[in-house]
Amino acid sequence: MSEFSILPGMNSPAALKSLSSEELKILSGEIREYIIETVQRNGGHMASNLGAVELTIALHRSFNSPIDKIVWDVGHQCYTHKLLTGRFEEFKTLRKMNGLSGFPKREESPHDIMNTGHASTSVSAALGVLVGEQLAGTRGRAIAVIGDGSLTGGQALEALNYAGHLGKNLIIILNDNNMSIGNNVGAISSYMSRLTSTGSYMNMRRFIDRAISTIPFFGKAILKFVYRLKRGAKSVLFKENLFTDLGFKYIGPIDGHNIDRMEKIFEVAKEVNQPLVIHVATIKGKGLLDAEENPAGYHGVSPEVPEKTETGESADTIKMTEAYGQAIVHAAEKDKSIVALTAAMTSGTGLKAFSEKFPDRFFDVGITEPHGITYAAGMAVAGRKPFVSIYSTFMQRAVDQVIHDVAIPHLPVTIVMDRAGLVPGDGETHQGVYDISLFKNVPGLTFVAPVNQAEMELAVEMAREADGPVMIRYAKDNCYPECDELAVPFEIGRGVFLRKGEDQENRTLILSLGSLLNEAEKCALILEKKGIPCDVYNMRFIAPLDIDYLLDLVSNYNLTVLIEDGVKTGGLGEKIAAAMLEHDRNFHFRHLGAPDEFLGQATREELIRECGLDGKSLAGRIDEILHNYRFEEVVKQVRNDSWR
Amino acid sequence: MSEFSILPGMNSPAALKSLSSEELKILSGEIREYIIETVQRNGGHMASNLGAVELTIALHRSFNSPIDKIVWDVGHQCYTHKLLTGRFEEFKTLRKMNGLSGFPKREESPHDIMNTGHASTSVSAALGVLVGEQLAGTRGRAIAVIGDGSLTGGQALEALNYAGHLGKNLIIILNDNNMSIGNNVGAISSYMSRLTSTGSYMNMRRFIDRAISTIPFFGKAILKFVYRLKRGAKSVLFKENLFTDLGFKYIGPIDGHNIDRMEKIFEVAKEVNQPLVIHVATIKGKGLLDAEENPAGYHGVSPEVPEKTETGESADTIKMTEAYGQAIVHAAEKDKSIVALTAAMTSGTGLKAFSEKFPDRFFDVGITEPHGITYAAGMAVAGRKPFVSIYSTFMQRAVDQVIHDVAIPHLPVTIVMDRAGLVPGDGETHQGVYDISLFKNVPGLTFVAPVNQAEMELAVEMAREADGPVMIRYAKDNCYPECDELAVPFEIGRGVFLRKGEDQENRTLILSLGSLLNEAEKCALILEKKGIPCDVYNMRFIAPLDIDYLLDLVSNYNLTVLIEDGVKTGGLGEKIAAAMLEHDRNFHFRHLGAPDEFLGQATREELIRECGLDGKSLAGRIDEILHNYRFEEVVKQVRNDSWR
Repeated sequence: MSEFSILPGMNSPAALKSLSSEELKILSGEIREYIIETVQRNGGHMASNLGAVELTIALHRSFNSPIDKIVWDVGHQCYTHKLLTGRFEEFKTLRKMNGLSGFPKREESPHDIMNTGHASTSVSAALGVLVGEQLAGTRGRAIAVIGDGSLTGGQALEALNYAGHLGKNLIIILNDNNMSIGNNVGAISSYMSRLTSTGSYMNMRRFIDRAISTIPFFGKAILKFVYRLKRGAKSVLFKENLFTDLGFKYIGPIDGHNIDRMEKIFEVAKEVNQPLVIHVATIKGKGLLDAEENPAGYHGVSPEVPEKTETGESADTIKMTEAYGQAIVHAAEKDKSIVALTAAMTSGTGLKAFSEKFPDRFFDVGITEPHGITYAAGMAVAGRKPFVSIYSTFMQRAVDQVIHDVAIPHLPVTIVMDRAGLVPGDGETHQGVYDISLFKNVPGLTFVAPVNQAEMELAVEMAREADGPVMIRYAKDNCYPECDELAVPFEIGRGVFLRKGEDQENRTLILSLGSLLNEAEKCALILEKKGIPCDVYNMRFIAPLDIDYLLDLVSNYNLTVLIEDGVKTGGLGEKIAAAMLEHDRNFHFRHLGAPDEFLGQATREELIRECGLDGKSLAGRIDEILHNYRFEEVVKQVRNDSWR
Repeated sequence: MSEFSILPGMNSPAALKSLSSEELKILSGEIREYIIETVQRNGGHMASNLGAVELTIALHRSFNSPIDKIVWDVGHQCYTHKLLTGRFEEFKTLRKMNGLSGFPKREESPHDIMNTGHASTSVSAALGVLVGEQLAGTRGRAIAVIGDGSLTGGQALEALNYAGHLGKNLIIILNDNNMSIGNNVGAISSYMSRLTSTGSYMNMRRFIDRAISTIPFFGKAILKFVYRLKRGAKSVLFKENLFTDLGFKYIGPIDGHNIDRMEKIFEVAKEVNQPLVIHVATIKGKGLLDAEENPAGYHGVSPEVPEKTETGESADTIKMTEAYGQAIVHAAEKDKSIVALTAAMTSGTGLKAFSEKFPDRFFDVGITEPHGITYAAGMAVAGRKPFVSIYSTFMQRAVDQVIHDVAIPHLPVTIVMDRAGLVPGDGETHQGVYDISLFKNVPGLTFVAPVNQAEMELAVEMAREADGPVMIRYAKDNCYPECDELAVPFEIGRGVFLRKGEDQENRTLILSLGSLLNEAEKCALILEKKGIPCDVYNMRFIAPLDIDYLLDLVSNYNLTVLIEDGVKTGGLGEKIAAAMLEHDRNFHFRHLGAPDEFLGQATREELIRECGLDGKSLAGRIDEILHNYRFEEVVKQVRNDSWR
């Protein structure tokens, strides 16, 4: 690792305050170097973090964290903040299991105000903290730092509207790193922001307000006109925009890489006693030439040397995301009514090829999951077949839209959930383990979990022909190897056997749901070696379930175990268990899934092991269950005999 | 019923087009009369519907529904639309079981484009329909009609932003019935809208654009300045506002009770080839003096002669909503850190008294459930104890905020869900039957269902003392009668017996969750008369559950039946069933709840009966289950004997 001269000593924001401009420049360089080194090794968010170095330094010099509360939207720009709030050493463990989180985390530091990961929440949260503290009688400030992308999310707009209405002295830093804004950081903007921040704007405003108040008899209509005139004048000399319409004062745009300039503006900001937006223009990926030129490619970076997987799959194994990307292109080639949508995740959801091949039928709605789902519902009304790709964790944002706009009118909208199940790297906020419990009970919804390319093609084809809503979920993982068993056409509500022996009464059945199928297979192999014969059945369907078929199938086995890539409680296992009990047959059934707690960051392999869902752990657990059964059976037998 | 001269003949929008102004005036009067009569008899939305009479007539005269698609936001203003699209006779059955819905419904008419009920979805949906039809090559227009209240919802803002970005010729009618806008409908506004709509605005705009394009060498900075100048000029003569900032053309405000004026504007609107907002000012409750003066009181109207309830409760029985309203005031009196929030439902959630008594600690965030929950989380960070009241059905909007902003950081935010379970009158979109399946699996959440005033006080007290998130749910129903059993302090994860006999092995146990307790009691009485002894246990808790305690408790009974006021699939019963099966004990268990389908409008009593959850049906179902058991037991006995 590089040797740093200043950064290691910056173990609290107070330390920052004595640095000279020259030292600040060195510090910025050291921070960039450390971030680049670490992200290249551990993976993480490169471009957004490199863009926020000077902004973060200026904030921590001007404000007094944690008495002043800085809330980072999404949190994918918080690395500098972490380095300057006592986490220099731990930063090496970034995104590692039990290491430093890539996002703000209250458990890590009093400087981390909220746990984040999802977009567009910072204004709501910071405003809540501000109002709450003012009620409690404390006197800190609250600063929300939000990017231009997050601002498209409806919750951010709700919060802006409400903050404007409340009129409290919330400070919003709009960190605008859209390339197109670069041009604004020029002569006029500089002039405007100086003008705006030195008070002449407020003086003029007061002057006009006074002038209006001295006109007693002109009535409301004239006042309105004067008000328009005032707006007219203001929009030439000052800023008149969306924010001011919502009741904010507005300063900017200012250069987000000029610490000195930002500090001067922040000092002025402290005197403003109403909601304030400071518009800061930054360059994503600043300081790493490749990232500056291609910030989208450097948004989320994977570790340079990928950790070895245990599966030892061949080089031509493709990811489930790619399998979907190919399947939707195939479907769209033969069916012109197909349109594909995503919420700001074109390449993450495998839609790049589709977007290039069918630009007129591709829609990126921005970070707006609720709008995206209802927009797709509207398209379905117009006879289109929309396929909406959204990460599982972000679909938590659009539950009502699925129920209200898609399921109630039973519209043929297909929702494709990438990153379902255990998700590597990003920790608690990004796990895709809740979708089954959230959506399996929505009436009329068909919900499937394909595991390889063949099943993906079948799932997309089924969705294309469906007359109602469909959900498709899959993990951020490789495809299960292609094989004949998985290429068999879908039968609604039923799965397929991957491994099936004779003499079922002495066998154990593993029901596998989704991308843990390879672990189920490994488990079966281990158990068979131990003399415990196992069959493996790939569920395919979460809903509907052909429950009579399933119960007939499992009734022949001495034990049935369901393995699902999602939370155990609320999962498919509960539904099956309830059906079994309702049939009053004495089934031996267990269901295994993620535990009832929030799962931290780790690789997918580590998470699977942590949940005891890897082949080896599964085999151990099933072995133990069988052992207990046999013991209990003996006890029962003894009891029965002694009673008779 | 009144005799009408024109209205009965208006069985399609086409019929409208030949009417004279005089006849339109008579028609408006007849529509108002019919709406008032019907709503006073059947209940429904009075003020919003009376305000939209002329607007709807003008829309149906100018546009060509259903080729042109009119999407009503929320749908609580669609009565006139229903009367003018062939539903004159059926309108008498408004909001009755199997009658006409109070909201648009695709199943009812091709003129109803979307099924609605929740706010802020119309812009997304209408835009989807428009873009979908353009892709398909058809040529209809799409018009979203949205009120100023719905515009605070984030999804509407997401959709506006996206619609501005797409640039398609979507028409948004902003139906502004805020009293404060009344003043704008005056001389200047009239002048402005005439000016704006006659084309001189567009001419001037083109002139300025041409002027700018002839300046070749002034560079970007100057162009920017000229652009500001243009904006400046425009904001004096024309409208410069939030909508234009987002890329819309804007016309208005215009008088929403002047059919002729609106039609002229709509004709101009057809020529605009970009997104357009037409700002229409209407008076809520227009034509019914009481409603005009007190539109909030006439938003949702209950039938004048309430239908008789079967319970025959005494006059001093209070509603659960009132019980919460009192409990939160009691708690706030002794604990200054308590704050109460609601999302535009102050009186609906019983918070009127709180808002008057503690105005500084009360926050109505508008129709912004996502913002509301995160805002509350921020307050909890600042040491406040927020209690957020939101109807169960609307909490579907904030699932991610509960997980991401409240549960992951384990913040003490209490979410109070009114209208949980079966909800009368409003139909599919307003049922509160999904909250248990959505939230019971969120890690660390305490989730309770109090049934009377004593339990409500206990629940609020428990929430006040909790160190993490709490949810409280209750039905739109009366409190269960106060009694000693229900006044016993809460034990986490456990319920209380309301009825308990000796000799449990011959008894049936009814586990009752929430406001169906009175039906459980009735069921027990009926069964006891038939010689089937029953105990009744009020669950209180959905999460956490003291599952060992519960299983010990039920293991003594010959049959256990859980009754829940929510969907059966995904409900608490599944969780209990799964735990039972995991314990490998041969429990006899059934769980009963709402079926796996969307439930239409009816009274709560009717819905309970429809789901088979009334005392009589429950008794019949349990009787049958027991009968089958006995039969099966005999069969088993015979088999066992013959095998031995």
